[in-house]
Amino acid sequence: MTRYDRIVLASRPQGQPGPENFRLEAADLPALADGEVLVRAIWLSLDPYMRGRMDAGKSYADPVEVGATMEGGAVGEVLESRSGKLKPGDIVVGRLGWANHAVLPGKEVRKIDPSLAPIQTALGVLGMPGHTAWVGLNDILEAQPGETIVVSAATGAVGSLAGQLAKQKGLRVIGVAGGAEKCRFAVDELGYDVCLDHRDPDLAAEMAALTPQGVECYYENVGGKTLEAVLPRLNVHGRIAVCGMIAWYSGQGIAEAMPLPKMWRTILVQRLRVQGFIIFDHFDRFPAFLQEVAPMVADGRIKYRETVTEGLENAPEAFLSLLKGGNFGKQLVRVGADP
Amino acid sequence: MTRYDRIVLASRPQGQPGPENFRLEAADLPALADGEVLVRAIWLSLDPYMRGRMDAGKSYADPVEVGATMEGGAVGEVLESRSGKLKPGDIVVGRLGWANHAVLPGKEVRKIDPSLAPIQTALGVLGMPGHTAWVGLNDILEAQPGETIVVSAATGAVGSLAGQLAKQKGLRVIGVAGGAEKCRFAVDELGYDVCLDHRDPDLAAEMAALTPQGVECYYENVGGKTLEAVLPRLNVHGRIAVCGMIAWYSGQGIAEAMPLPKMWRTILVQRLRVQGFIIFDHFDRFPAFLQEVAPMVADGRIKYRETVTEGLENAPEAFLSLLKGGNFGKQLVRVGADP
Repeated sequence: MTRYDRIVLASRPQGQPGPENFRLEAADLPALADGEVLVRAIWLSLDPYMRGRMDAGKSYADPVEVGATMEGGAVGEVLESRSGKLKPGDIVVGRLGWANHAVLPGKEVRKIDPSLAPIQTALGVLGMPGHTAWVGLNDILEAQPGETIVVSAATGAVGSLAGQLAKQKGLRVIGVAGGAEKCRFAVDELGYDVCLDHRDPDLAAEMAALTPQGVECYYENVGGKTLEAVLPRLNVHGRIAVCGMIAWYSGQGIAEAMPLPKMWRTILVQRLRVQGFIIFDHFDRFPAFLQEVAPMVADGRIKYRETVTEGLENAPEAFLSLLKGGNFGKQLVRVGADP
Repeated sequence: MTRYDRIVLASRPQGQPGPENFRLEAADLPALADGEVLVRAIWLSLDPYMRGRMDAGKSYADPVEVGATMEGGAVGEVLESRSGKLKPGDIVVGRLGWANHAVLPGKEVRKIDPSLAPIQTALGVLGMPGHTAWVGLNDILEAQPGETIVVSAATGAVGSLAGQLAKQKGLRVIGVAGGAEKCRFAVDELGYDVCLDHRDPDLAAEMAALTPQGVECYYENVGGKTLEAVLPRLNVHGRIAVCGMIAWYSGQGIAEAMPLPKMWRTILVQRLRVQGFIIFDHFDRFPAFLQEVAPMVADGRIKYRETVTEGLENAPEAFLSLLKGGNFGKQLVRVGADP
């Protein structure tokens, strides 16, 4: 019997979560059943959607139970295998959870090619966030060359790829991010035409000044004041891809949100299409995404940035910081040594 | 010089409009220019969208100026013509406004065939409201056999056709209307599977009880409490066609509306598609609509109901009643005698 470390949901948060909602503990690994693999975690991904799993209410996936391991994707190395398609030493990505080891069915992990790009990109620009950005831009927004797009959380794991891909497609790309440093990075490194700071009290006026011809596409990751600044700028037949709303995940800012009838009227008058999407519904598009984006990551046309936190025990703190925009690019936790 | 009667916008309403916002007056008809026709109005159409034209704010069309004739569609008879394609005696439909005579370009009116159906149906089931119902159901909602649809304002000019066409396509059709008499009509005459009264304080609970398998499509004409009752029932990949929101047109009920973040979260979690539309964008679909629906009106498969108000001078009162749901089916004003 092998011991492993994991972080469990200690209690459900009321509003903004805190360290008290998590607990690090040791547990016994189960023996491998037929078809299963034992994986040693190297990189853990932290993503805003995890906030939703901490609540009991119905969402697009079941909540994490109190006392259970926090869910999450990770990259790791296969240590033992009872699956015909995997062998020790293989590098895989899968839902290992917030843990340094995991036993799971071999068919639920995906083998990755370490020669393609650094292995942790399977959690970021070449993984779920990247796939989300690509689907949102191409399949949901149907963004067209010559159009103007606003991308919120512009330097985050999803936004940073959405913005770069939009630029490569020939759109005018306006980012919204938190703080001057992120905004500079968006323009200087990611190639955004311009980037606004969502903390700026004049955000709406600046957005209006920047978009005299209006906006066709809004890639929505945040809700809140950013949404309120973009909505009046949307042109007739504008589209909104609703991918996330981190500003509202913990209940803050809800009382100050614009009234629903104002949104509804804008949808009608401007004939907007507002579409929510979740990447689980679009797995069939993963190969096309990877085929297009992997070469661009390999040759440097697509850039990505990471915030790395060392040690599984620091995952809760890193996650709480992520919810407040404390990350810069993809938030990762280094859980184990490189192979 | 010929005199004619018209109703002008006397002042802009603050919230709910009243009789003081309208004025009946006589004016001089201009002489006919080349290409123009003089039309004697027979039937005037009253529609909820006219409320929006009374406000100064930007909408999908320019507002009516204070002192100008209220806009609206009407059916009438050509009295004089300087257009090659029309002759005296022709029956036409066009934007004559709230008036008993109008001079307008021949190319802006459409000649109708009185043998097809009663001429006033060109303002209702075979006109703009019918076309709107058909486009919303087929092109916006993409309603499919076997699905469940909720239609609000279920017995109105738009809703009554949307519901009947949905039933004919093989959907389960739930109506929402104001009062027991309209609900009975929806079920007994229009063929709705069931119809709920939006004034019922238990509307949301009754909607939930009626839809254990959820709802795929919502044809939105009203906003308000009806929207709040339907939203939690929408299944994954549900669609909302936003066609109108009469409950909110005059500013009432806005403070009590659900918070926007709740709507936004539902759009994300359920991956909804919410699409606003206005019939002006879909004129290319008019021939296909007419080809499908006109025979069904002619042979009685599609039913329609009218509320007729006598006399142009009573149009304001009829319109104010319409905004409160006082009509039953298509609201018409008899402005002149049949040809």
